[in-house]
Amino acid sequence: MSALPTDLEIARAARIRPIGEIAAAAGVNADALEQYGRYKAKIDPARLAAPEPHGKVVLVSAMSPTPAGEGKSTTTVGLADSLARAGHKVMIALREPSLGPVLGMKGGATGGGLSQVLPMDEINLHFTGDFHAITSANNALMALVDNHIYQGNALNIDPRRMTFKRVLDMNDRSLREVVIGLGGPTQGVPRQDGFDITVASEVMAVFCLATDLADLRSRLGRITFGYTYDRKPVTVADLGVEGALTLLLKEAVKPNLVQTIAGTPALVHGGPFANIAHGCNSLIATQTARRLADIVVTEAGFGADLGAEKFMDIKARYGGLAPSAVVVVATVRALKMQGGVAKDQLARPDLAALEAGVANLRRHVHNVEKFGVTPVVAINRFSSDTREELDWLLAWCAAEGVRAAVADVWGRGGGGDGGDELAALVAQAVEAPSSFRHLYPLELPVEDKIRTIAQEIYGADGVDFSVPALRRLADIERNGWSSLPVCMAKTQYSFTDDASRLGAPKGFTIHVRDLLPKTGAGFIVALTGAVMTMPGLPAVPAALRMDVDDAGNPIGLT
Amino acid sequence: MSALPTDLEIARAARIRPIGEIAAAAGVNADALEQYGRYKAKIDPARLAAPEPHGKVVLVSAMSPTPAGEGKSTTTVGLADSLARAGHKVMIALREPSLGPVLGMKGGATGGGLSQVLPMDEINLHFTGDFHAITSANNALMALVDNHIYQGNALNIDPRRMTFKRVLDMNDRSLREVVIGLGGPTQGVPRQDGFDITVASEVMAVFCLATDLADLRSRLGRITFGYTYDRKPVTVADLGVEGALTLLLKEAVKPNLVQTIAGTPALVHGGPFANIAHGCNSLIATQTARRLADIVVTEAGFGADLGAEKFMDIKARYGGLAPSAVVVVATVRALKMQGGVAKDQLARPDLAALEAGVANLRRHVHNVEKFGVTPVVAINRFSSDTREELDWLLAWCAAEGVRAAVADVWGRGGGGDGGDELAALVAQAVEAPSSFRHLYPLELPVEDKIRTIAQEIYGADGVDFSVPALRRLADIERNGWSSLPVCMAKTQYSFTDDASRLGAPKGFTIHVRDLLPKTGAGFIVALTGAVMTMPGLPAVPAALRMDVDDAGNPIGLT
Repeated sequence: MSALPTDLEIARAARIRPIGEIAAAAGVNADALEQYGRYKAKIDPARLAAPEPHGKVVLVSAMSPTPAGEGKSTTTVGLADSLARAGHKVMIALREPSLGPVLGMKGGATGGGLSQVLPMDEINLHFTGDFHAITSANNALMALVDNHIYQGNALNIDPRRMTFKRVLDMNDRSLREVVIGLGGPTQGVPRQDGFDITVASEVMAVFCLATDLADLRSRLGRITFGYTYDRKPVTVADLGVEGALTLLLKEAVKPNLVQTIAGTPALVHGGPFANIAHGCNSLIATQTARRLADIVVTEAGFGADLGAEKFMDIKARYGGLAPSAVVVVATVRALKMQGGVAKDQLARPDLAALEAGVANLRRHVHNVEKFGVTPVVAINRFSSDTREELDWLLAWCAAEGVRAAVADVWGRGGGGDGGDELAALVAQAVEAPSSFRHLYPLELPVEDKIRTIAQEIYGADGVDFSVPALRRLADIERNGWSSLPVCMAKTQYSFTDDASRLGAPKGFTIHVRDLLPKTGAGFIVALTGAVMTMPGLPAVPAALRMDVDDAGNPIGLT
Repeated sequence: MSALPTDLEIARAARIRPIGEIAAAAGVNADALEQYGRYKAKIDPARLAAPEPHGKVVLVSAMSPTPAGEGKSTTTVGLADSLARAGHKVMIALREPSLGPVLGMKGGATGGGLSQVLPMDEINLHFTGDFHAITSANNALMALVDNHIYQGNALNIDPRRMTFKRVLDMNDRSLREVVIGLGGPTQGVPRQDGFDITVASEVMAVFCLATDLADLRSRLGRITFGYTYDRKPVTVADLGVEGALTLLLKEAVKPNLVQTIAGTPALVHGGPFANIAHGCNSLIATQTARRLADIVVTEAGFGADLGAEKFMDIKARYGGLAPSAVVVVATVRALKMQGGVAKDQLARPDLAALEAGVANLRRHVHNVEKFGVTPVVAINRFSSDTREELDWLLAWCAAEGVRAAVADVWGRGGGGDGGDELAALVAQAVEAPSSFRHLYPLELPVEDKIRTIAQEIYGADGVDFSVPALRRLADIERNGWSSLPVCMAKTQYSFTDDASRLGAPKGFTIHVRDLLPKTGAGFIVALTGAVMTMPGLPAVPAALRMDVDDAGNPIGLT
């Protein structure tokens, strides 16, 4: 039996069209298009002749996932391809992959099978350099801050109270905790420090929430990078370098146009972490897509308890967006895991486990309704799923009163017939009357915002704040940051803050360990556990399999 | 009196043509061209339909410079524009600017006045991302190395004997000396470390000396990043990641096409340090230019004692190049400084100082002849120069038997008549018979190669090796690296290793403090003093003046 083709093999076998053709078909005027190689381009929103944003937004989210992921990006791509096939004017808005994990474990993050964005190798590697520009802006800030301290420290910055780190787009555990500025009086001022991965940078979050270049500049200026010796926050604007950081980002901020295997236009732009940030592609990309298309299919990180909630309460709020439908991706595998089946047994047919696990899906689906938006369940088909399992799940959804369809966008593609039913349901849903609302008003105190999310979305009884978190709540009040929305950093594997509690648990408390004000991005991160902001490499990194053949073609991206 | 326009203002006022037009005029076939925005493109040498390299190479070097520089890049651009104006098919090959110094002191590095390459802002900022790709490859290597040590250290790497550092394209003195891997057993293995600026990375040197993708892969594999506990060198190939590093560089390695203000095509590609590396643009760019043009004007860092010697003995050797002429840029200011005038008095007319300083130029010019190549002196005119000073200098050159011309390529441009005389002399020189030779054969022992350079080029009596350097010579012999060429790291301000000794000193010794084998790049660096491989920012960094206007245009690049 021959092996299944890898994503890279499928991608390379696909016919890819010159990006100018894709742009023209999408209605991008030529002078708004800046090509980057043959198959990538940036769109300058300021030169775009398209009308104001009008396209309906379909958000692709998911039930609580397995560690392997439930195929949100693949479903996003496949759904858009199917909508296009049905005659809709559609555009995709996706996050850019981070290079660090590509070299480490994942190999790539551009969808899979027949539902991929192309050119997958270039998107997974440096793409158009946006993350490098963000890395540069972040690190320029920290070089300027440490230089300010070294040159006399007129701002009275306390080197022990820095809240901002340098970043690399790399999985490099050795840089998590470092001491810098060693070597004597000409080498800077010694202090404890650390590096995050670029997607964890607040510059990334700012980049993805900015509405335009002027808003980007203001947000950068509002970033708090540390505190003075008398505990006053110090911002980028205090240092006077928001202009330089904006200059470093002025090209990166233009959305990147690529295409799916089926030729659907996709904007792939920005990629903040889904834990300590909001986990969606840039607002500028989403709004640019809404100017060009009638339906925009986009994605949020992790499950709907995290990604969708943040999309609704952070991104949609700053962007003035109202999503018209939310697709909740579910898999038979993930439902069985939520039903208590061990990870290595998920391929075995097990109706009882499915039935036990479906409570997880139920809570996610009804959560979506709390925002006044119609949910559609996309059952992303795996080859191990039985017809009996799929039929049971469809029947359950029907009984629950939830639109649902099985999609095989990996194997048959949205460009084929793999997503036709799903697309039809989504097309109906976006036409259905909806009354989008945020979960909480901004005037609510920060602790009450957190309580609202924990009770309404997670199903918790209440929230417990640690002593440091209580102290931080007082700081937030004093510094005038109380009206910012909240960004929850919680495990994606459970509604609780304990990854091992599956299904739809009740009778639990959410523990807020600490709060991180991100005053540039414009949210308060609530940490409910240890959050890894600099991943490590595994014992056998994906990089060991990577290479280039004699013709310059990539090898080993999967 | 109105202020002189800045380089940025001149650049922005210039008419810039779509890069496709420049490429077509230069003979680049469309399917070898990959656009990056409107005014930048990469050329894929593998798809280029042009013939094998045939263009004559004109190397622009200089006398010992002042700290402000003598305008080598400006002269390179202006000379090429003048040659084009005279009807020659000409192309420029220049280094890419490093972002760190742009944010720090310099503001930019793309020529000046009317002799600039465009778009100066984009070239000075992220350009096409090559330096970011090099940073990524360098740092991927180090993440993989530290991960290897953490995961069991099968290669027996001694963390105390690492010879390779992480890099950032940033002036960040706080990262010069750091301790990494802190925080306990899950956070890596603690060790002393440091960051260099990206242009100091051996990956950069490798990138610039590689003849093609396959050679790049081999050279990356040969990089020695440290030693085992039993003091054996460990290479990238031992770790098995040369394929992944090559994959990260596969797009970056294609040369970047831009244009001058006068519309001359320029390849701007790669930019290794001129001290611990060889200081010239990529060999691939030079050879690509030689396929497309009859005359290629290129540049080497620092004065001719360093840049030209390394060009002849390292780059020309690995590339099989024979330069046809060397332009030695001289300025009245630099000659006066070499004659003993203080830096703040250089604008005052002073014929006696000029006469005293000209010995410096004499030695550089005659050094060029030792390589069998014709020198041409380009007197780069400054507004403070008097007619009397310029006439004296021209007369001196005539008496010395050296071709010389005054060039005003900053003020009048090579596209105007500012470089006509210089271009005529250079056009003659490249037609003159030449018999290029390297200064030393590779079989010579490393210490004798260093002695040859010190005596023949610098005018030293001899070379003194420190005890560590002698020990390193024995290691080099034992490891089989003796046949590599030498890369001198010496102050650019003096023929000696003491920056304060001006003119053409005699009766001195060169002190070799240490030797650094760069087995991937393929040279042995001889350190003759402290070399700064991570610059710092000044008290008032250029970044403080930088910004973006409402239309997205850059502010504060100079």
